[in-house]
Amino acid sequence: MSRIPRIVILGAGYGGIVTALRLQKQLNYNEADVTLVNKHDYHYITTHLHMPAAGTDKPDNARVSITKLIDEFKIDFVKSTAVQIRTQDQKIVLEEGTLSYDYLVIGLGGEPETFGIPGLKEHALNIRSINSVRYIREHIEYQFAKFKREPSRTELLTFIVGGAGFTGIEFVGELADRMPELCKEFDVDPALVKIYNIEAAPTALPGFDPELVEYAMNVLRNKGVTFKIATAIKECTPDGVTLATGEEIKSATVIWTGGVRGNHMLEEAGFETMRGRIKVEDDLRAPGHDNIYVLGDCSIVMSPEGRPYPPTAQISMQQAEVCGHNLISQIRGADLKKFEYKPKGTVASLGRGEAIGIVGSRKIKGGVASAMKKIIDLRYLYIIGGIPLVLKKGRF
Amino acid sequence: MSRIPRIVILGAGYGGIVTALRLQKQLNYNEADVTLVNKHDYHYITTHLHMPAAGTDKPDNARVSITKLIDEFKIDFVKSTAVQIRTQDQKIVLEEGTLSYDYLVIGLGGEPETFGIPGLKEHALNIRSINSVRYIREHIEYQFAKFKREPSRTELLTFIVGGAGFTGIEFVGELADRMPELCKEFDVDPALVKIYNIEAAPTALPGFDPELVEYAMNVLRNKGVTFKIATAIKECTPDGVTLATGEEIKSATVIWTGGVRGNHMLEEAGFETMRGRIKVEDDLRAPGHDNIYVLGDCSIVMSPEGRPYPPTAQISMQQAEVCGHNLISQIRGADLKKFEYKPKGTVASLGRGEAIGIVGSRKIKGGVASAMKKIIDLRYLYIIGGIPLVLKKGRF
Repeated sequence: MSRIPRIVILGAGYGGIVTALRLQKQLNYNEADVTLVNKHDYHYITTHLHMPAAGTDKPDNARVSITKLIDEFKIDFVKSTAVQIRTQDQKIVLEEGTLSYDYLVIGLGGEPETFGIPGLKEHALNIRSINSVRYIREHIEYQFAKFKREPSRTELLTFIVGGAGFTGIEFVGELADRMPELCKEFDVDPALVKIYNIEAAPTALPGFDPELVEYAMNVLRNKGVTFKIATAIKECTPDGVTLATGEEIKSATVIWTGGVRGNHMLEEAGFETMRGRIKVEDDLRAPGHDNIYVLGDCSIVMSPEGRPYPPTAQISMQQAEVCGHNLISQIRGADLKKFEYKPKGTVASLGRGEAIGIVGSRKIKGGVASAMKKIIDLRYLYIIGGIPLVLKKGRF
Repeated sequence: MSRIPRIVILGAGYGGIVTALRLQKQLNYNEADVTLVNKHDYHYITTHLHMPAAGTDKPDNARVSITKLIDEFKIDFVKSTAVQIRTQDQKIVLEEGTLSYDYLVIGLGGEPETFGIPGLKEHALNIRSINSVRYIREHIEYQFAKFKREPSRTELLTFIVGGAGFTGIEFVGELADRMPELCKEFDVDPALVKIYNIEAAPTALPGFDPELVEYAMNVLRNKGVTFKIATAIKECTPDGVTLATGEEIKSATVIWTGGVRGNHMLEEAGFETMRGRIKVEDDLRAPGHDNIYVLGDCSIVMSPEGRPYPPTAQISMQQAEVCGHNLISQIRGADLKKFEYKPKGTVASLGRGEAIGIVGSRKIKGGVASAMKKIIDLRYLYIIGGIPLVLKKGRF
């Protein structure tokens, strides 16, 4: 009797969870053993994290218990942190124990990329997990409480968001919405609060339609956000940031959203990486490893124009569909599919009731875009958890 | 035409606000100008502050806008901080400006008394105002958020309350109730949380019936509180406390409730003080000053046995009634009343649904005492703001 192949999925982010669901649905009985490994016993919806980070939504609304998503009769779930990938003997070293695999899916997500800017790693906060966003929320509230004890320290009410990409823009929108609430709660004059969004690139939301970017910036400016575009952060200290222009901005809160790289384990495992990411083959496998698939922030997929697609939830989920298909094909000895990204549009929220986006070739903004954003969010909940999850976690 | 006498009331705590209300009710038109001076534009209910400090109630439930309590046609309200009392020329120096008085009521409240214990002033938090309790609440939540980033630092989950008097005991009761909620919110194992209540005196709640004290300590022990009674704190550092026994307890949160002294301005103004308080005459006036009344935490009233009564909301309010009466009598040239404290009973809450108390000569505990506590609280709201305030701020 031949042994049942063992599939290990590292990470229950978009890529990992959708791959698991796909395998759960399509694998036949005893066709493969599937084990999903994740640091937490919940999956979190990364694209929602900017809300609990600002405190405009509960952290619980951005996460789902993994055992509510997968069928534990079909898929094993191990709550543990992977610390090493050993391709030479096909093992994953966990914080507690070791797992063997025949097929591996790497969906470990990303890590903040600070581009070597001094102090960012030590002093800036990152929007990257439920724990980190709870921390950011508490940190922000704490600054208001501190300010009431030391009312001369107005830098406690200055908030700096580094990076005006997708996450940065969505976060400043929520942050600006949250400020009036916090000012009311702590009896603080709203005029004292300052929010800066600083971006080194020549534009906010690089790659987005310029007309929509202009619209977004105006919406956010009206909410009190000050932009510093085409302005690099030279250094981050416990007291704020110094810009390339020499300007110093004092602040007790710097949130860095300016870059993402792949998980550090990939490089350590001997894969060839660019910014910690593996440039995958057409079928999503790591070059030279015909049993290892790489998804999401750990992977690089090139566009037909030869540029890497930005890592998004959307591309991860599409990768997961193909990854699930290819794993099953491989086990069954069938042909593998090529992955082709089909962009379905992008919507960036700008806080309450406001958003911008491209759907198909159509530009949308304002209430329409905001409604579309909600639909996209609900669709994702539906994909991973069906109607019950939509009803439980959906924001209508 | 003789000038209308000017009465200035410093502080809108229990003593100040009740005096103001009494004057407002009983002074005739043009009999006196009354000005109430307070740092904030709200009165706060000090005996409730342990709840918002622990996060079991909203800070707003412990405060009332001053202009909702007083009639601004009859009493002037000045929102400012008094910085100096000048008895020689009958003036109060405010942060902005100066006020003249013919009669002065000092109800400025107390300040933490740290008995010279090194580090307490710098590193311990105090339950003493809306701002301070919002800070404590945020500080506690922040420790949970921090712990999730640095799970080896269990001292972040250790909370030390110095002093097992009234405030200390009521606060640990709320704190213990709050912990399960915070553990749930931050995914923290409740077994990691530690609450210490440390008291130098030979018993908790000194002066209270020993049977009730025993009951209270058992209730709180069952909620997870560890007592260290007859144990002095020798030093407080940013890392915790060292006890007189040599034991060190690591903690990022020390809340000091162990003592209260009078406002520092009294000593600076040349009054004879004991721990910052003025031992008042029978008619509540400061010795040698027939136009200055002193109330609450700024005053010392001796019991018939020659011991100072502990400063409480109850005694302050009774003082305020007599102070109001005596001010009017003095203006009208009538005789002044002697103040005699009539203890009506005391109830200490122990968190949700639990309390102990003495009402008349009767000991009460458990649900009965807890209900009595609520009645006392509602009665106070009724005294200062009538039925509308009871309905708005009452906890039923």
